[in-house]
Amino acid sequence: MLPSETTPSPAHSGLQLYSYFRSSAAYRVRIALALKGLSYETIPIHLLKDGGQQNASHYRSINPQGLVPALQTAEGGPVLAQSLAILEYLDETYPEPALLPADAMGRARVRAIAQMVACDIHPLNNLRVLRYLVRDLGLSHEQKDAWYAHWIALGLQAVEDTLARSSDTGRFCHGDTPGLADCCLVPQYANAQRAGCPTQPYPTIERIVSNCQALPAFVQAAPQNQPDAD
Amino acid sequence: MLPSETTPSPAHSGLQLYSYFRSSAAYRVRIALALKGLSYETIPIHLLKDGGQQNASHYRSINPQGLVPALQTAEGGPVLAQSLAILEYLDETYPEPALLPADAMGRARVRAIAQMVACDIHPLNNLRVLRYLVRDLGLSHEQKDAWYAHWIALGLQAVEDTLARSSDTGRFCHGDTPGLADCCLVPQYANAQRAGCPTQPYPTIERIVSNCQALPAFVQAAPQNQPDAD
Repeated sequence: MLPSETTPSPAHSGLQLYSYFRSSAAYRVRIALALKGLSYETIPIHLLKDGGQQNASHYRSINPQGLVPALQTAEGGPVLAQSLAILEYLDETYPEPALLPADAMGRARVRAIAQMVACDIHPLNNLRVLRYLVRDLGLSHEQKDAWYAHWIALGLQAVEDTLARSSDTGRFCHGDTPGLADCCLVPQYANAQRAGCPTQPYPTIERIVSNCQALPAFVQAAPQNQPDAD
Repeated sequence: MLPSETTPSPAHSGLQLYSYFRSSAAYRVRIALALKGLSYETIPIHLLKDGGQQNASHYRSINPQGLVPALQTAEGGPVLAQSLAILEYLDETYPEPALLPADAMGRARVRAIAQMVACDIHPLNNLRVLRYLVRDLGLSHEQKDAWYAHWIALGLQAVEDTLARSSDTGRFCHGDTPGLADCCLVPQYANAQRAGCPTQPYPTIERIVSNCQALPAFVQAAPQNQPDAD
């Protein structure tokens, strides 16, 4: 645990989330925590201050990858890394409301949509990658922005096609309750909007995100509502 | 289903895997199928021939992302996409031998290691990304190779640190039976070797991969042993 900058929530559950308000991977976990009504302590890891607090040796000793989020569980033990693994842990440990459907085919569908975001869009556009493009490869900011928009467009189109063609899609990515795929889609959509990427080509995504954003859990988890927002 | 190039296995289970022998994401699923003793039909999708068979409209109608692998399940219904989602589906539907440990903390650890590969190494180095670097950004092959090696080194070092520091690591990534993390690590290691990236800095990974490669399931799933290997 870091010694400074902790922001205790009232009557928290023993969960501590290493988070950065703008990290879309941390945002996923914050949505899940809020959907399940779990309070937690936010331990801010500022990705830009101090040369990146995620690179500090004390944080590396907690998470060798030096990425956020990471979750200290209520049962203690090692800190959990990787947002999708944390989402699954939360769903297994705090089953209500469920983030995954009851049937194996449905779970596979929801996980696949989540992974279309978490494996095939987000890793290409996160901070360390954009830095490598500019600092190590000497690309211009225009080239970097084109890269960003390219993977967003390719990825969101595939998600749109997957959602639009299936009768499993409801008010949310799978049926009429929000789940694991929505936890991933909303932060990715927010990134796209923030970067000025068009979202009109993805009407099903727009509709689902709008339904999510009407829910208090999604509002509570949003970057601008975090204790470390600056 | 594609009309041509199917390679039926004897007495297969009804499972059909859209695969490319060199795809490390498909390789993950092949390992899991072999560990569980499930025969299946391979439907080859050649990523380089015909402008990329994954881009053909008939394959896009099966998998809108145009990526391999995809799995037609024995129960029918839509084809499943995304290798990690497929691995979880297989583990839920064919539970023995289990790819995930029995406890939620252990499952979180195994999934996190798998995702360190599947989210933070592989997506940066797959075919479509390398092509974008060269064709769209005009980078040299040396720059492309440096990019490849950079994400391999960063990612494998984090996996090594995670494995080396934990008493949960055994003969395999988690304990003494191969599981979901090993299904992801072995193909990534194979990619690193094939690209000439050093592996000596990662002795725990080397030891575990060696233990895996001694098992028939991992041999059976290897690229060179696929019906579509060329």
